[in-house]
Formats: sequence, structure tokens, C-alpha cells
Amino acid sequence: KINSERLWDSLMDMAQIGPGVAGGNNRQAVTDEDSEGRHLFQKWCEDAGGTMGVDEMGTMFARFEGSDPDALPVYVGSHLDTQPTGGKYDGVLGVLAGLEIIRTMRDLGIKTRRPIVVTNWTNEEGTRFAPAMLASGVFAGVLERDWAYDRVDAKGKRFGDELARVGWKGSESVGAREMHAFFELHIEQGPILEAEGKQVGVVTHGQGLRWIECTVTGKGQHTGSTPMYMRRNAGRGLARVTELVHEIALKHQPNAVGAIGQIDVYPNSRNIIPEKVVFTIDFRSHVLDTLDAMVAELNARAPGLCADIGVKFSAELVGFFDPPAFDEALVGRVRDAAERLGYSHMDIISGAGHDACWINRLYPTTMVMCPCVDGLSHNEAEEIFPEWAEAGANVLMHAVLETAEV
Amino acid sequence: KINSERLWDSLMDMAQIGPGVAGGNNRQAVTDEDSEGRHLFQKWCEDAGGTMGVDEMGTMFARFEGSDPDALPVYVGSHLDTQPTGGKYDGVLGVLAGLEIIRTMRDLGIKTRRPIVVTNWTNEEGTRFAPAMLASGVFAGVLERDWAYDRVDAKGKRFGDELARVGWKGSESVGAREMHAFFELHIEQGPILEAEGKQVGVVTHGQGLRWIECTVTGKGQHTGSTPMYMRRNAGRGLARVTELVHEIALKHQPNAVGAIGQIDVYPNSRNIIPEKVVFTIDFRSHVLDTLDAMVAELNARAPGLCADIGVKFSAELVGFFDPPAFDEALVGRVRDAAERLGYSHMDIISGAGHDACWINRLYPTTMVMCPCVDGLSHNEAEEIFPEWAEAGANVLMHAVLETAEV
Ligand SMILES: NC(=O)NCCC(=O)O
Ligand SMILES: NC(=O)NCCC(=O)O
Repeated sequence: KINSERLWDSLMDMAQIGPGVAGGNNRQAVTDEDSEGRHLFQKWCEDAGGTMGVDEMGTMFARFEGSDPDALPVYVGSHLDTQPTGGKYDGVLGVLAGLEIIRTMRDLGIKTRRPIVVTNWTNEEGTRFAPAMLASGVFAGVLERDWAYDRVDAKGKRFGDELARVGWKGSESVGAREMHAFFELHIEQGPILEAEGKQVGVVTHGQGLRWIECTVTGKGQHTGSTPMYMRRNAGRGLARVTELVHEIALKHQPNAVGAIGQIDVYPNSRNIIPEKVVFTIDFRSHVLDTLDAMVAELNARAPGLCADIGVKFSAELVGFFDPPAFDEALVGRVRDAAERLGYSHMDIISGAGHDACWINRLYPTTMVMCPCVDGLSHNEAEEIFPEWAEAGANVLMHAVLETAEV
Repeated sequence: KINSERLWDSLMDMAQIGPGVAGGNNRQAVTDEDSEGRHLFQKWCEDAGGTMGVDEMGTMFARFEGSDPDALPVYVGSHLDTQPTGGKYDGVLGVLAGLEIIRTMRDLGIKTRRPIVVTNWTNEEGTRFAPAMLASGVFAGVLERDWAYDRVDAKGKRFGDELARVGWKGSESVGAREMHAFFELHIEQGPILEAEGKQVGVVTHGQGLRWIECTVTGKGQHTGSTPMYMRRNAGRGLARVTELVHEIALKHQPNAVGAIGQIDVYPNSRNIIPEKVVFTIDFRSHVLDTLDAMVAELNARAPGLCADIGVKFSAELVGFFDPPAFDEALVGRVRDAAERLGYSHMDIISGAGHDACWINRLYPTTMVMCPCVDGLSHNEAEEIFPEWAEAGANVLMHAVLETAEV
């Protein structure tokens, strides 16, 4: 069993870096705070006997040798970057639980045949530099390195330049490493485990995702002097599509979700009828056909719902990935470990996207989840209990050690 | 008849100051550009024999003597400030048509008994410093001068400080002047006159207005990992209230309008369910009971529509005025002038708020309207034809001269 207190202390130490304004963290990717957090992680890894490698995307790989230096390593990790108003556990738990496995192995004198590599993927959150899971996406060959370098933040700064500036642009070619397996422990970021009273989530699948950027175009007229029958109010198009998205997601219960998260209205003035509304739909399902059906229904119905009220609907796919099914053998190992350790557990589908979803395209991968209070995440008030972190890390360790061949 | 070419040339000369980016103007209140426009107007007035007075709100009063210096003057004017992406005629036409009346009187040797005062009200648009019609509101005693001074722009600059900085903070006490009557020519800012093929609008009433700032509060959860049945999506509250506002306005046709113009979503992220949406409803009617009924229906139904989907609705009245009915004698004089001059005309209700709506509370007031192309205003593409400006200015002159006792 891992040392729960040490894991918790490390979580709290990391949370000192890039504190938020309301008890959480603001340690966004490739900022000075991110860099400081990386240095601390590197020191901890080196103290535990690891050797650090950094690739051209800044992803950190702390390697701990097993008895066979030629065996393909087992990778375990997540991300240390946070949302601007993020919590202390989203990502961080998965990285530090990986480190805690190593520390526990040293305490107990456990040695595996395969090396273990604890990983910190760069820019999982994607809030400073969209999209999310940027470095693991390049690693998986889904995104291009140079395209990633050209991503800009709100101030116009390039990802590649900022990565060099903070000193974490490594020389290792991205994706050069081969993995025997990849494991990621992550907080659920949803309310299911807590509601079901389970300590551990055995992640069998992830949801696929379609991000659709929609534009409704009407006419920017004066709210006072335009008669009702002459209006082309883009805000009403938004209203209709909001309800349509909800209806489409409900139709596929319990296998789908859908919502509009970002809405920008132009010119956004009290006394001008919205001329244009730009908004993003987030459709997800772990069933590929369902995902396709949702997008098809949107495209079939939204233009007409908008045309009926004199506004124009258009849509563009701006983000997508198909539902990953995690490696059955590894999933079984996670389930067995939870069972063996006596933790209450359930199979669960990851609602969110994770670095593991990309790595799963290349190598056997799976995830372990632990509950979070009230399902709250991407919020400084994100909370977990030390017992939950402990249970998740113990299950992770048992599955990793078995895979790394104790 | 006025000199149509001279009026148009002056409109184009004024439009040189604070040009926009798309053929219109950006000459917002109390900026350097506004100040430059004021100097040009002052020069024109002085060249035409006027004496300029400026009050503590920066409103300009160019007085042209009649034969009886003790008679109460007839006031005529509008505003020279524009929206950030404004047109060349909104407000400007009313001020320069006032000046054109004076110029025509000199050309034709016409003298009235009463003085005529051509007026430029400060900050009608209210986009840099909310609310709209600020200076006329203080003049009418509806707003406080010192409260107006404390309005701040987006950069935190105070209205009072900026007014002093640009050199247009006069010493005349606001509202000290007594008027025999006030006339305002303005573009319609709506599509009715053009659609009906009329050259002149005889403005009998204005709409009253209720600006209601609404907040819908839900829960900011992850769009991927929160099951549909656990969501409290504030965006759905917005959708329901959008349709409710539309339905309420339709119920009172043709005597009402309603729309949501400004919408701000928090945290406004692709993968976070809207936690909070703040938006403004603009309800208008020229019938006071209708206005009250609309607000009452909103307050009766919106909280329930939102509660049904687990979100909370709250509302605050942030702007209001009751429907003005313009002076019947003056309205009759405008109608007679249009008839006499052979212009096609119709009675119309001003859909927008104007300085005349405030002044109407103190002194006999009315307005003349001219069409604008496609009803477009608050838009750099705002357009009118010289013939429309000419017709409106001629009707204005005839009504003003009759009132000022030729
Ligand atoms: N875990 C997480 O929130 N990743 C960002 C991508 C997503 O929205 O799922
Ligand atoms: N004329 C005009 O647009 N005034 C601003 C106030 C309003 O929205 O009516």
C-alpha cells in the first residue's frame, strides 16, 4: 500500500505553486508557475532515483529502472497544468500518484522487471493554448508538432516560443518512445462515483467528442424601433439550438451528453438585436454511432429551426475524437486490483477527454478514477478526500506493478 | 425651403471627424473627436451669427436672436456624438438641420419674434458612458449632475473628468434655460417609413422602456462527465427566457417590442456547462399599461420556467422611462407643414429613446422623422438619401418658424 500521507503532502506542496484566488490553482501550461511546478516534480523524481527526459513538446518522462533495462517500460502519469480557475487534483493526482508508486517501491524494496516512467504531459487543459491534450495528441501522431508550436494564447504568444522561454523545450523527438502500457489515474470530474458510493472507478471506455462551432446570423437592428415582424434575431436561433442540443442528447440516454458552453453575441449591446451569435456545442458519447447520429440530427434540424425565424445557421467541426475502448487486459487488472484490495468499485466511462485517450491509439492503455466531491472540477472549489486519493493510488500501483512484472 | 446641398455638405464635413472603419463614424461622447466636431459646429454657428452657451454637462446652445430678446426661445437640435460603429446621420442630422434653418433664414431674410437656439446634447448614445441621453436627462431633472459626472467608461475614466479634459465643461447651470418649445429631427432608426414609402414621419408618441438585467444561475460542471439528469444548465434558462420575451412582446402586437440584446456567459468555456448567464431584456411600448403588463408577465413566468430545469432566475430593473406623448399642437404643426409642402407622411411612434423624450417632460416638444435605408442604424452602414434629409429639414423649418412666430 502507498503512503497516503506522503501522497497528500506532495499534492499540497504542489498546490503552493500557482495558487488561485479561491483555494484552487492557476498554474496554466507553459507559464512561469508551470515551470516552477515542473522543477519541483523533477527534484522529487531525481531524489527518488529517476532520470528525466524531456521531449520537444515539453513532456517530462522520469524513468526508474527495473531489473531488465531492455524491456519496454510501463508509463504512468497525467498532467501538472491547471485551468485558470482550476482545482488541486485535476491531473496532478495522476502524476504524483505515479511518483508515489516509485517511492513506495523504494520503501518496500519492490523491484519490477520493466522500467517505470512517470510522465507529465504538457498542456492537457488547453485553456491557454487550445486544443486540450496538445502534447499527447502530438505524441499520438494526431496533431503536428509544428502546428502545436504555432498555437497562440490570448496575448498572441506562440506555444513554441513560450515553451522555449520557460526552458522546457526538450530535444527528444516527440513520440520516439515505445511503451509497454500506459496508465492514468484521474479524478472523475463528474458526480457518478460519489453518487453510487464507490471508491474506485474502473474505466472501460472513454467518450468520443464532437466540438461544433455554430454561427447564427440575423440582422443587427435597433431593439426599440424595429417592429417585431421585421426582426431577424440571432439570439432566438441560439435559444432554439440550445433546446435542440438538449433534446438530441436526451434521446440517447444514458449514452450521450450535449451542451453549449461558450456563447459570444455580436454586437452585444442592450439596445441592438443580436446580429450574430457564435457558440460551441459539445456532444459526447462512448458509442460512435450515437455520436454520428447526434451530429446528423443537428445538421438536419438546426438550419430549418433557424430559417423558420429568418436567421441563418452554419456549423463547423472544430474538435473531435472517436470513443476509445481501453485495453481489456489492463482494465481487468485494474478491476482485479480494486477487488483484491477490498475497495468498492464500478465500471465507468470517462466523460472527459484525457491524455490516455490519445495514447490508447498507440499502446495498451487504461485509466483509474477516483470520486470528486459533488462532481465539481474545472473549479477552484474542486475537492477530494485523502482516502479517495489513497484508494485510487493503491489500485493504480497494483495494476502497474503487475504489468511491469514484479 | 432649405438649401439641401449645403445641409448635405455639412453632414459630410462633420463625418470627416472621427471616421469609422467601414464608412461610418466613431465620434463617441467626450473624446478628442467629439471635441473637434463641437469646435466645427461652434464655428459654423458663430459664422451664422449665433452666440454659444455651454452648460455644466457640456451641452451646447447656439442662440440666434429674434426680434424680441425677452421672448422664450424655440429650441431645435439633437446630438453630435456617435456609437463606436455609428452612422453619419444618427443625431447629426438633427443638429445640422437646426443650423440649416438658421442659414436659410439668413439667405431669405426671414426673422422670427422668438430667438431660436440650436442645441447639441452631450452623450446621447451612452455607449462610452451609460446611460443614453445623459445630458438631456440631467437637464430634465431625471438624473443628477454629480451622478452623471461619476459615470465611468470601460477604462475607468470619469465622465466629469473627461468633459473637463476636452474643454467642454461649461459653467452654465444645467436646466437653467426655459424653452418655449423643443423640436428634434432624427432618422427613424427603423424600417417603417421606408416600407410604407413615406418621406416624413410625424412623431406623435415615443415608446416607454424597461431595461431588465436578468441573471440565471446554474452549476458550472464539466460538459463531458456530468450526466444529463444531474445538470443545471444556465444556458437553457437563457433559451427559455429568450422565447418568453419574444412571446410576451408578440402578445401585445403592434404595441410592443421585446428582445435580449446583451448576453454574457460564465465561465464561457467550450467544456464547462454555463454556470451563470447575465443578460438584458429591452421591453418597449408606447402604452404604459402594456409596458407594466409585459414586466409583470416576465416576473410571473420566468422564475418557474427556470426552476423547472433546476436553475434560478433573478431580475433587476436597470433602466426605464414611461412613454412620452408629444405636444398635440406642435405635432399638428409638423403634420400641417408636411401636408403643405406636399410630402408623403404618416404618424409614427418613435421606437428609440431621444433627448426629446426627456425634454418633453418639461416643455412642449415634438419630433420629425426621416426614413433610413433598410431601417439600419447603430451601424456604420447607416444610410439616408439627400432627398429624405431635405424633406425632414423643410418640415422641421416650417414647424419651427411657425412656433417661433415668423
Ligand atoms: N479532463 C479534461 O477536462 N480534459 C479536457 C478535455 C475535455 O473537455 O474533456
Ligand atoms: N436613439 C437611440 O438609439 N437612443 C438610445 C436609447 C435607445 O435605445 O432608444
